[in-house]
Amino acid sequence: MLSATPDRKTSLLSRYQHIRHQTEKLCAPLTPEDTVMQPMVDVSPPKWHLGHTTWFFETFLLLPHLPGYSVFHPQYAFLFNSYYNSMGSRVARSERGTLSRPPLEDILAYRRHVDAHMEEALQRDELLANPTVAAILELGLQHEQQHQELLLTDIKYILSCNPLLPAYLPEAPSVSGQISEKEPLNEWLHVPAGLYTIGHQGSGFCFDNEQQPHQVYLAQFEACQRTVTNAEYLAFMEAGGYANFTYWLEEGWQLAQQQQWQAPLYWVKQDGSWWHFTLHGLQPVDPQAPVTHISFYEAQAYANWSGHRLLTEFEWEALAQRHANSLEQGNFLESEQYQSVPANGGSAAAQLLGNTWEWTYSGYFPYPGFETAPGAIGEYNGKFMVNQMVLRGGSCATPQSHIRPTYRNFFHPDKRWQFTGIRLAKR
Amino acid sequence: MLSATPDRKTSLLSRYQHIRHQTEKLCAPLTPEDTVMQPMVDVSPPKWHLGHTTWFFETFLLLPHLPGYSVFHPQYAFLFNSYYNSMGSRVARSERGTLSRPPLEDILAYRRHVDAHMEEALQRDELLANPTVAAILELGLQHEQQHQELLLTDIKYILSCNPLLPAYLPEAPSVSGQISEKEPLNEWLHVPAGLYTIGHQGSGFCFDNEQQPHQVYLAQFEACQRTVTNAEYLAFMEAGGYANFTYWLEEGWQLAQQQQWQAPLYWVKQDGSWWHFTLHGLQPVDPQAPVTHISFYEAQAYANWSGHRLLTEFEWEALAQRHANSLEQGNFLESEQYQSVPANGGSAAAQLLGNTWEWTYSGYFPYPGFETAPGAIGEYNGKFMVNQMVLRGGSCATPQSHIRPTYRNFFHPDKRWQFTGIRLAKR
Amino acid sequence: MLSATPDRKTSLLSRYQHIRHQTEKLCAPLTPEDTVMQPMVDVSPPKWHLGHTTWFFETFLLLPHLPGYSVFHPQYAFLFNSYYNSMGSRVARSERGTLSRPPLEDILAYRRHVDAHMEEALQRDELLANPTVAAILELGLQHEQQHQELLLTDIKYILSCNPLLPAYLPEAPSVSGQISEKEPLNEWLHVPAGLYTIGHQGSGFCFDNEQQPHQVYLAQFEACQRTVTNAEYLAFMEAGGYANFTYWLEEGWQLAQQQQWQAPLYWVKQDGSWWHFTLHGLQPVDPQAPVTHISFYEAQAYANWSGHRLLTEFEWEALAQRHANSLEQGNFLESEQYQSVPANGGSAAAQLLGNTWEWTYSGYFPYPGFETAPGAIGEYNGKFMVNQMVLRGGSCATPQSHIRPTYRNFFHPDKRWQFTGIRLAKR
Amino acid sequence: MLSATPDRKTSLLSRYQHIRHQTEKLCAPLTPEDTVMQPMVDVSPPKWHLGHTTWFFETFLLLPHLPGYSVFHPQYAFLFNSYYNSMGSRVARSERGTLSRPPLEDILAYRRHVDAHMEEALQRDELLANPTVAAILELGLQHEQQHQELLLTDIKYILSCNPLLPAYLPEAPSVSGQISEKEPLNEWLHVPAGLYTIGHQGSGFCFDNEQQPHQVYLAQFEACQRTVTNAEYLAFMEAGGYANFTYWLEEGWQLAQQQQWQAPLYWVKQDGSWWHFTLHGLQPVDPQAPVTHISFYEAQAYANWSGHRLLTEFEWEALAQRHANSLEQGNFLESEQYQSVPANGGSAAAQLLGNTWEWTYSGYFPYPGFETAPGAIGEYNGKFMVNQMVLRGGSCATPQSHIRPTYRNFFHPDKRWQFTGIRLAKR
Repeated sequence: MLSATPDRKTSLLSRYQHIRHQTEKLCAPLTPEDTVMQPMVDVSPPKWHLGHTTWFFETFLLLPHLPGYSVFHPQYAFLFNSYYNSMGSRVARSERGTLSRPPLEDILAYRRHVDAHMEEALQRDELLANPTVAAILELGLQHEQQHQELLLTDIKYILSCNPLLPAYLPEAPSVSGQISEKEPLNEWLHVPAGLYTIGHQGSGFCFDNEQQPHQVYLAQFEACQRTVTNAEYLAFMEAGGYANFTYWLEEGWQLAQQQQWQAPLYWVKQDGSWWHFTLHGLQPVDPQAPVTHISFYEAQAYANWSGHRLLTEFEWEALAQRHANSLEQGNFLESEQYQSVPANGGSAAAQLLGNTWEWTYSGYFPYPGFETAPGAIGEYNGKFMVNQMVLRGGSCATPQSHIRPTYRNFFHPDKRWQFTGIRLAKR
Repeated sequence: MLSATPDRKTSLLSRYQHIRHQTEKLCAPLTPEDTVMQPMVDVSPPKWHLGHTTWFFETFLLLPHLPGYSVFHPQYAFLFNSYYNSMGSRVARSERGTLSRPPLEDILAYRRHVDAHMEEALQRDELLANPTVAAILELGLQHEQQHQELLLTDIKYILSCNPLLPAYLPEAPSVSGQISEKEPLNEWLHVPAGLYTIGHQGSGFCFDNEQQPHQVYLAQFEACQRTVTNAEYLAFMEAGGYANFTYWLEEGWQLAQQQQWQAPLYWVKQDGSWWHFTLHGLQPVDPQAPVTHISFYEAQAYANWSGHRLLTEFEWEALAQRHANSLEQGNFLESEQYQSVPANGGSAAAQLLGNTWEWTYSGYFPYPGFETAPGAIGEYNGKFMVNQMVLRGGSCATPQSHIRPTYRNFFHPDKRWQFTGIRLAKR
Repeated sequence: MLSATPDRKTSLLSRYQHIRHQTEKLCAPLTPEDTVMQPMVDVSPPKWHLGHTTWFFETFLLLPHLPGYSVFHPQYAFLFNSYYNSMGSRVARSERGTLSRPPLEDILAYRRHVDAHMEEALQRDELLANPTVAAILELGLQHEQQHQELLLTDIKYILSCNPLLPAYLPEAPSVSGQISEKEPLNEWLHVPAGLYTIGHQGSGFCFDNEQQPHQVYLAQFEACQRTVTNAEYLAFMEAGGYANFTYWLEEGWQLAQQQQWQAPLYWVKQDGSWWHFTLHGLQPVDPQAPVTHISFYEAQAYANWSGHRLLTEFEWEALAQRHANSLEQGNFLESEQYQSVPANGGSAAAQLLGNTWEWTYSGYFPYPGFETAPGAIGEYNGKFMVNQMVLRGGSCATPQSHIRPTYRNFFHPDKRWQFTGIRLAKR
Repeated sequence: MLSATPDRKTSLLSRYQHIRHQTEKLCAPLTPEDTVMQPMVDVSPPKWHLGHTTWFFETFLLLPHLPGYSVFHPQYAFLFNSYYNSMGSRVARSERGTLSRPPLEDILAYRRHVDAHMEEALQRDELLANPTVAAILELGLQHEQQHQELLLTDIKYILSCNPLLPAYLPEAPSVSGQISEKEPLNEWLHVPAGLYTIGHQGSGFCFDNEQQPHQVYLAQFEACQRTVTNAEYLAFMEAGGYANFTYWLEEGWQLAQQQQWQAPLYWVKQDGSWWHFTLHGLQPVDPQAPVTHISFYEAQAYANWSGHRLLTEFEWEALAQRHANSLEQGNFLESEQYQSVPANGGSAAAQLLGNTWEWTYSGYFPYPGFETAPGAIGEYNGKFMVNQMVLRGGSCATPQSHIRPTYRNFFHPDKRWQFTGIRLAKR
């Protein structure tokens, strides 16, 4: 049975409040108008993120478990359900941009209402001792952290569509924007052949898609110590990488032609130099920072062009197992850089966690023995297990406490608005 | 030469201020988030209307004519140009919904900046005496009044897309929502055969598309004294009007099937009764009010089903000439009903002006001798003269001082979000 | 009562056979594979034309009027109904290209079956004396002649989509392809102001859309003696006509940009010269032949650029009334040129009939008093009376006996695959 | 060095002729019109298959290796290149349906021309001894066999679009169409945990995507002895399988809703019974035959509903390794059934090869060490390695000599027009 000691209570409450506060802090620089934008279907309006994460706690924890709780507003379930078919009808994803009402202040009131009741619930011994409640609480917090990353990437996309190119935060942190002069790290890390246990083990939280742990046999391979830099990617561009089909997967090539891709998303050329639209506004491209905002197609074409290849997700995880002591430092959401920074020279396997997600050449499929939870909570990961590629390692927009080496992120191979980059393996 | 007497100055200034104020008054009930919505491509965000009408005065009057004037913001021309190819590149119409910035308060500051300079300009004798300036001022005011009507219809559409169905104004005016008990007016008005002069004559303002006045021969006809009511339209619906192709134009029928039209736009059936989403929220359909929010296709199908036909725009104008003394009263924007109301029994030709636009079976084409003004100002009406149908008479969202019997409004035959209705002629 | 004299019998039979034979003759140069192509939705496969025209006689004449007649195949009604909603379900227009079966020989057998029964019917006095039968027979023949023109234009489009650019007929007629050296006709023909009777009068056949004859008042105008030549149109092209929005209607401009129009349909530039894909294969553009295969948008832009305008359909008809004696000669389907040829110098109003259809600036709307026939036969013209522009005069693909000065053809303003050109009026 | 003995010559020639003849035999029942149909973009017209397979030999073998060979027609390379970017421009895949010309007889002449030169080449010792030539010859034959399967599935789709539902072959083979009364095989086959070598080994032909052989660790599992039957699939349908999202992947569910899937492709319900459109026309669904023509989405939903799961491609191959002696018999193209038949009771692992392809829950990705050949020949498999799922085992439309246990077929998860079915594993 779970303890409901005062310490655990305090710690849970504090963690709850910290995470919930973080979400609102991320929205603070926005105008009310910013919070309703949905310039492409993948992006959700910030106001929707604020409501949806709140609806999660209300629907899955307060309503079933806090006696006497009644919903803040009878129609919010319709507005803020994302994709849970079990939970009834909902606003179509592509129509989230029509929600000018409820106004932002109502959503903030909704958050306060749910927070007050959550704080009440977190005082109740019988709830804290209930493993279902504990699991939902944990899932709700992890879920809110996922949305923090999406908030940042969606805000970046929203602002990038505006002809005025407004900055989310006015000033870039001192380190960023500078041209780094350090030598890049160029070691190749050897991983020997053998059976590796892949998937999450132990008692900490993980998503269902990290289960079950299972044996995977890997041949030996060499992985690059760091991710590909902007300078390296620029060399690919200048070598005609976007104009030569031989490097590309056919569907990637067709898309790149049709969309006229010439550079990563958010790069613009002005007066002969490349600039990058960041959350701090337009900045010169930093040659030694990891390239980000590229699709799987571009990652694969780059790897092909360079004579290397991408890792599989199993190779990536084995690499991380062997460099577990390099994982603690990194550029996460808490750094408030909100963009990738050059690798720190001190570490053998730099940038495994943070900075940029790394596309793997693995499809997002179930692990052996994968099971979903019954009911709506089970509609979380399993139903997306097709047509998407696995990304590993987290990014500069991922909360540090949210990421781990077994974490499996997934996106369609054409997506570019996340912080996504490349780690190479030798062929 | 135009006089620049103190009276004319005062009157111009007061008219300018009144019209500009009216636009802002229409936006006052909106949240900032409402002002950026573009739920379909025909609709422009209210913030855009606020900026665009201001840009018109800045671009065409202040910049060329007020010495020393400099623009409020160098990029606003890009943001707020509507379709004037002569004026350079612009935000694509379908992308107006991406403009979360500049924030609403900046747009309001833009309006105050331009208003202050306009007020200065309207004090200058040499400007007031310049016929070009006078013409642009008049055009700018008429243009702003056009956008007032669009503001109301766009706001209605925006709010209707929200699952909460918020009301623009909380309370309906006392007259509206009541079921009117009066007898409908059913007279047919005879118009004799002969040559009629169609088009604008005299010295008052008109748009270029009302020129030149020219002779049109009309056979005699009979037109209904009033427009078709909701009750009459409901009879068409209940008789299977939406399910029987024989009444319809083929393109209308295809569209109605594809879009699953079953009633006018904004009508919803709840518990067996029809309700109408209005700017005062959901209201019962008033049987004796004129039907509105129907496409040309529906107007034509209704006329066909009823054994009658629509008027041509020439017949409509001849009818209005013969009932010139009935035109003064009407339900215009100033009534603040913002929806059609039952016809007043006192008048021979009720509702010719105001209440609802009337679809005619006339294409929007140039009158003989039509000429456009040179330059950007000339890109006003002529370039839209294909694929659209003429509407006559104004609506409950038209400013009274903006409408006249020769006024030619025009929309594609599938459009439904304007206040558009039906007047019948005998076959 | 209609006479059923031997002479009338012989003449009707011979006309029936002649028209039916003409259709098959037009298909003779095709491979079986050609007859099933539908490279765009406007085009119908030649096999479908062969079947549909036959279905018309079977459905509307033989089945209701020839005792004991039974259909050739129970599913052909489904295959070969065009758009008659009254006649039940049918293959969607866009799916006509899926009809590899029935094979061509079955369709030809279908034609022979129906022809044999039609010939039998045309021997029966009681049928010939029945005015309904006579009207349907006439309509069926006119309908088949309409499809002869569509056959030619559809075949041209089909062959033009093939990378081999195959010729329909191997050798061009001697006159065509030569560069004509004659002086172009440049007279302007005056038409005085007044009331003109527009629409079909007399006892000959006309379509319902030419009825009722009615008075139209026209101001005086001047019309060009001939249609615009390729050389003149080339001057527009070379003057940047396709690159300057000021000449264009907005919807035309958007479409021309999107489709990258640079020249009339079927024109290709090779080694610095313009060639025209014709039914005789690729031929040099003849500078003095009338320009064809342009949309209404291009016609209107050309007129605008040249400082002139298009005629209305009423002006066109008044012009034709005044030059009735010039109408007999012309380049029709029977000439077997299948492309426009330079105007004959001998005539005051050259090319009014034949050579190329002339876009007018008139929408295709009902004449006053327009009535449709009851039932399926009435689904002929009326239901298309919106969004289309009227063309007058027939073309090199129109059978001579099918055209007359009151004939109203109609197409959407973007269509280019018909033989369509320009006649100018002075502004 | 390869031998060029008389025996090897005779055997190669005979194999070449046999395979080439088979292709033409498959097209023999078609009308010329059938051979140009492209009712959806995945389908290629049969005439195109006939030309493309011939172009392969001409382009990659005759032109570079047979001295003095000149192409049959200079434009055929443009017409019949499929997707080889290295080989220059080509007819867009979606435009293959515009190729009414060259006529079928020209394509057959093209085949005879290339065959005559190939037969000449196969007499030449120096060519037979050239390993490049031998490799291309083998690839060309395997390629032609691939297109034989596509021909059958494309023909089936083409005929299914025709409202007449014509049969490809008039009479069903005696065994098919009967309701089989045998007991279904229901054994579960155990595969123990361990390291398996996956991929092609030995000297026989394989595609590049079967290379390199590599070790894969598998946990133990149980696989069903046979594939899922129509009766079993019908139970899923009747249990509401198509109406309950819980069984489905989200993208599959969205697609199924949008396309209104209610049954496998080609199934139609008439008078309460299910019929299947086959290459022998409409036949009653055979309850004990394997279900075919389902998408991966449906396969996965079925497996989920039944409480089981799909195999991975590695599990499938391990299963086949353990039942290598069951693989020789099967229902292949040579059986001329052209549809799946009930499993033969005699075999432990029935239907591993032939009858129906089996969707696996494995993405189509490169094996470790995968390399493509340089040049155009290398544009074969690698560039499609994303967004597709692996299928194993071949079908009733696969030539027997073309299939083997390591063969990896791949399609997008929504495709249904191939013979595709389901084998279950225990969760």
